[in-house]
Amino acid sequence: MIYLSNTSIDMALKNLKDSLDNYRFGAKETIAVDTALGRVLAENVFANRSVPHYHSSAMDGYQVRAEDTVDANVDNPVSLSWSKVKYVDTGDPILPEYDSVIKIEDIHKKEEGIEILSAATKWQHIRPIGEDVTAHDLLLTIGRKLKPMDIAALIASGIRHIDVFKIPKVAILPTGDEIVPYDKEPQVGEIVDSNSHLFYGMVKEWGGEPEVYPITPDNFDKIKEVVSKAVANSDMVLINAGSSAGSEDFTSQVVENLGEVIHHGIAVRPGKPTILGNIGGKPVIGVPGYPVSGYVVMDVIVKDVFYHLNGQVTPSRKKIEAKLTKPVVSDLKYQEYVRVKVGKINGQFIVSPMSRGSALMSTVVQGDGFLVIPQSSEGYKAGETVQVEVFEEKNYDNTLVSIGSHDMALDILATYLAPQLGISSAHVGSLGGIMALKKGEAHFAGIHLLDPQSGTYNIPYIKKYLKGTKIVLMNLVKRTQGLMVQKGNPKNIKAIGDLPGLSLANRQKGAGTRVLLDYLLEQAGVSPASIQGYNKEYFTHLAVAAEVKSKRADAGVGIYAAAKAMDLDFIPLYEENYDLLLSEEFYLSPKFKELQNVLTKTDFKTEVEALGGYNLEECGNIISLEENNSKI
Amino acid sequence: MIYLSNTSIDMALKNLKDSLDNYRFGAKETIAVDTALGRVLAENVFANRSVPHYHSSAMDGYQVRAEDTVDANVDNPVSLSWSKVKYVDTGDPILPEYDSVIKIEDIHKKEEGIEILSAATKWQHIRPIGEDVTAHDLLLTIGRKLKPMDIAALIASGIRHIDVFKIPKVAILPTGDEIVPYDKEPQVGEIVDSNSHLFYGMVKEWGGEPEVYPITPDNFDKIKEVVSKAVANSDMVLINAGSSAGSEDFTSQVVENLGEVIHHGIAVRPGKPTILGNIGGKPVIGVPGYPVSGYVVMDVIVKDVFYHLNGQVTPSRKKIEAKLTKPVVSDLKYQEYVRVKVGKINGQFIVSPMSRGSALMSTVVQGDGFLVIPQSSEGYKAGETVQVEVFEEKNYDNTLVSIGSHDMALDILATYLAPQLGISSAHVGSLGGIMALKKGEAHFAGIHLLDPQSGTYNIPYIKKYLKGTKIVLMNLVKRTQGLMVQKGNPKNIKAIGDLPGLSLANRQKGAGTRVLLDYLLEQAGVSPASIQGYNKEYFTHLAVAAEVKSKRADAGVGIYAAAKAMDLDFIPLYEENYDLLLSEEFYLSPKFKELQNVLTKTDFKTEVEALGGYNLEECGNIISLEENNSKI
Repeated sequence: MIYLSNTSIDMALKNLKDSLDNYRFGAKETIAVDTALGRVLAENVFANRSVPHYHSSAMDGYQVRAEDTVDANVDNPVSLSWSKVKYVDTGDPILPEYDSVIKIEDIHKKEEGIEILSAATKWQHIRPIGEDVTAHDLLLTIGRKLKPMDIAALIASGIRHIDVFKIPKVAILPTGDEIVPYDKEPQVGEIVDSNSHLFYGMVKEWGGEPEVYPITPDNFDKIKEVVSKAVANSDMVLINAGSSAGSEDFTSQVVENLGEVIHHGIAVRPGKPTILGNIGGKPVIGVPGYPVSGYVVMDVIVKDVFYHLNGQVTPSRKKIEAKLTKPVVSDLKYQEYVRVKVGKINGQFIVSPMSRGSALMSTVVQGDGFLVIPQSSEGYKAGETVQVEVFEEKNYDNTLVSIGSHDMALDILATYLAPQLGISSAHVGSLGGIMALKKGEAHFAGIHLLDPQSGTYNIPYIKKYLKGTKIVLMNLVKRTQGLMVQKGNPKNIKAIGDLPGLSLANRQKGAGTRVLLDYLLEQAGVSPASIQGYNKEYFTHLAVAAEVKSKRADAGVGIYAAAKAMDLDFIPLYEENYDLLLSEEFYLSPKFKELQNVLTKTDFKTEVEALGGYNLEECGNIISLEENNSKI
Repeated sequence: MIYLSNTSIDMALKNLKDSLDNYRFGAKETIAVDTALGRVLAENVFANRSVPHYHSSAMDGYQVRAEDTVDANVDNPVSLSWSKVKYVDTGDPILPEYDSVIKIEDIHKKEEGIEILSAATKWQHIRPIGEDVTAHDLLLTIGRKLKPMDIAALIASGIRHIDVFKIPKVAILPTGDEIVPYDKEPQVGEIVDSNSHLFYGMVKEWGGEPEVYPITPDNFDKIKEVVSKAVANSDMVLINAGSSAGSEDFTSQVVENLGEVIHHGIAVRPGKPTILGNIGGKPVIGVPGYPVSGYVVMDVIVKDVFYHLNGQVTPSRKKIEAKLTKPVVSDLKYQEYVRVKVGKINGQFIVSPMSRGSALMSTVVQGDGFLVIPQSSEGYKAGETVQVEVFEEKNYDNTLVSIGSHDMALDILATYLAPQLGISSAHVGSLGGIMALKKGEAHFAGIHLLDPQSGTYNIPYIKKYLKGTKIVLMNLVKRTQGLMVQKGNPKNIKAIGDLPGLSLANRQKGAGTRVLLDYLLEQAGVSPASIQGYNKEYFTHLAVAAEVKSKRADAGVGIYAAAKAMDLDFIPLYEENYDLLLSEEFYLSPKFKELQNVLTKTDFKTEVEALGGYNLEECGNIISLEENNSKI
């Protein structure tokens, strides 16, 4: 059993960098300037030539001697004969005998020459030599990542070759008996190597040259061999994974054997089991295997080392201030990176923390940024203003925030709104959606809540929870809920009454489907305790269907479209209303008009109906709420 | 004479887009997912496989049946025999007979099995099938530009091929009799083709495939021929330049002949003479020839059309709020893009407008962003808070703002501070630097102001202008000022008294060198009126030297290093103090310590001395100010 240390990120990075061969480690190479976009300068560059390199006309017009024009004014036009002036296009050289240019718009052309109505001042409309760049000016300094205008300026200033840092080569070493290449269908217990592709892409984006090695099995000698080779051929080596303290983790032993482990265990979450090592003066980093851990360690640690090698300051992410919707608790021991969704409601940024599992790569794909909780902070309270590091620039004014129940029709709606409008969705069930609307944290919520007393949908819940909140209710779809069972229905399930003694994949509390199941169970006089798995919760229709498909459950309640997608049999139980609850602000905005516009499209309706089990007859209809309620 | 229209940017873009063949015009292609980084999805992608695709252990530990553990607590350890448990590594599958995992840290290994001190709950430390992604989940929507984690998620979800938009091909057509390729040394009247490289780089950065055509001369038939060919082979054509209303501008005629000119003349400055055209349903844009005009038109107009073709929303720039140091006046007719420098002083962003000439590419290279002044705005007053669109994320906390006189030693200092600290310099002369310090708009200012009364440097000016402002004065260098004359000194100039009747390249008012010249002229009893060119001002030593080098002036006053760089003869006149005036805030900050540290380095001193005419004996010395002054 290895006990990991818990070194702070800053300290660990400092110690690793200090151990490396030397500060600006990247070797240089000389390249042609027109191939240098995105490369990093390894020298200070001084101009070879002035820009412009001759006195040139800034306008189309006539070059003149200013002293010939001094008497001209509106009351006293002056004529200059052709022998005293000369036409110039923009960029043409000024001849030594002239010292001023008059714009073509400001002259009258006559047979004998030009007539002017105002005096020209010396040097007007002339770009003197060196106006933009003077020869020997310092143009760009070492460490500059070359942008398009830099290249143009170098070229204009007579520079043809420059010294840049060689692109750092980063070796990516996937290891593990359970890892298989991405083009192989993984068996149970096998994991497809997606991390190497993640790391490859990140290194590419930083401007490095990644090289992915073949997968090495969990074997000390084999790992040692490939690490030795990679260190010899690269500027930096990433070993993935084997960096935690499990039984088959050889990474730290190999690094120790070939060089030095500087730190094993960093105070970052996810990402704690990271190894920072040095072999032969080069950084060798053991990156954890869970995708989000890997992403965070690449982003927070590896990137910084990479830029260091390249003589550059690590670029920082854009930060925005936003109001936190839910409390976030953090361990004092770690700097924690919580993935969040960001939305803008009523002009204010709203940030919602996502699931924190370090295996959930979907939280990075769907997320908008990190809420970084420093070491020694216990986290934040709901309603606090926090800083969020966003993954990319995004126009949040064009992003609709949807918090509530999930339905596939929403996904299809999103594809019709793109690219003008985006939907940022959080799937928290119907009741969660109602609460989000109440707190002003969403533009709309998908809800489908059956009221057991009245047998009606949604309106009783709105009355109960949203008194005084201005909202509008609109039908999106009607959809068929039913029992999803294995293909061929081997347990011969015909109705809810058949469930006792069988196993079920259930939905979470607060989900409309859960409310429906409980209603149907009660109607059928079935006790939840008689059903295996009733207490294990899944968060989407597809997750329930997948559980049935894998034969871990005999049945689950869900929509027809999910059963169809998973090729399951389906016993219809109930047609329910899946409505959108809209905030007043959103309902009155032009963005709602765009959404409404999609709902009228035949293409949209056809695509949703093709999923199966959907009825769009009332799609887009506003549902009347009673007068004492809150309809606008 | 063609009169250009003045259509607003939004209207012009809308009309051009409406005229194009169809909305998502980019053709699709199917590619392997591991080659798709940065490509744009042309389809919605649904998961093929759940992640994880089997119930898997989230920890290294033992899989157990939770019901076997219910009695365990600290007072009542429970032993489970080897037949009842099975070891799992993280990621290993959970066998059907188990439903819980106990972490390795939480067990005691015994001979007969494991001992535990707390009950396990069902499903603890197990990642159920589909926890991250469920098969058939909508993973990513059309229009998404694929990031590294997207690729990883696609791979993990069993996706091997995807449909993406073909990369738009953008033809770049340089035209003009005066344009020569960048590897040819330009003669007077010739201009090196730097714009094609600028446009190439920008298209690359957007994710397009640029193709630069050979330079076409100013000839209607030849331009028509190359435009026809480019339209046939590309998705978008850029013609540079010939878009203004000069005598040899064939661009609009060619577009009109082959298709339609939608707009000629856009309400943007710089960039007005832009042509938006449509040939055969494809966009053809005439981009103006001045580099900054070209940059703005590419950035504001062409980029938007490019993203439109690719089915994406054009990314917006990061905006920051900053205090404006100087008034900016703008014509009501145009949306104007003023290049600015951004600094952060005392926690506040400060923005300084730069020179506005549309030919000054150095303003884009050295600038930090655009101050965008909307059409129908007259501009902003000094001290107003304005929004700046910054070119890139940058840590302004690590950027020193230097406003004042320029000296080459400052450039060298900057290279020693990089990459940890950057210097953002504005060259406004010594007096301008003193005023910037007074207003709190700079960290430091380089100054070298001779007091004609006392013959001393800088201190009298500080007393006069900075009473009550807390500052520190430090010597950077002493340097030799003198007369720069043509090689071999053909006019036989020996002293200031020889200048009458000759031509001079002079510095701007407020520059220390100008003050020195005026002092020397007075001492020598020479009248400025007797010297040609006294009133034409240049802003740097090198600009003056270049003027002498080009033989437009017989002499100029400047530092030895500039004369040496331009290979001119030099007649020494005066050794002056070039000091740094430091704000108290900066002097007391750790950043000053870093700067001070550079000044002690032998490498730095040697490099400055090698420029010639420098004396670094007192470099870094704090200069005592009198007691009634403001030294800390």
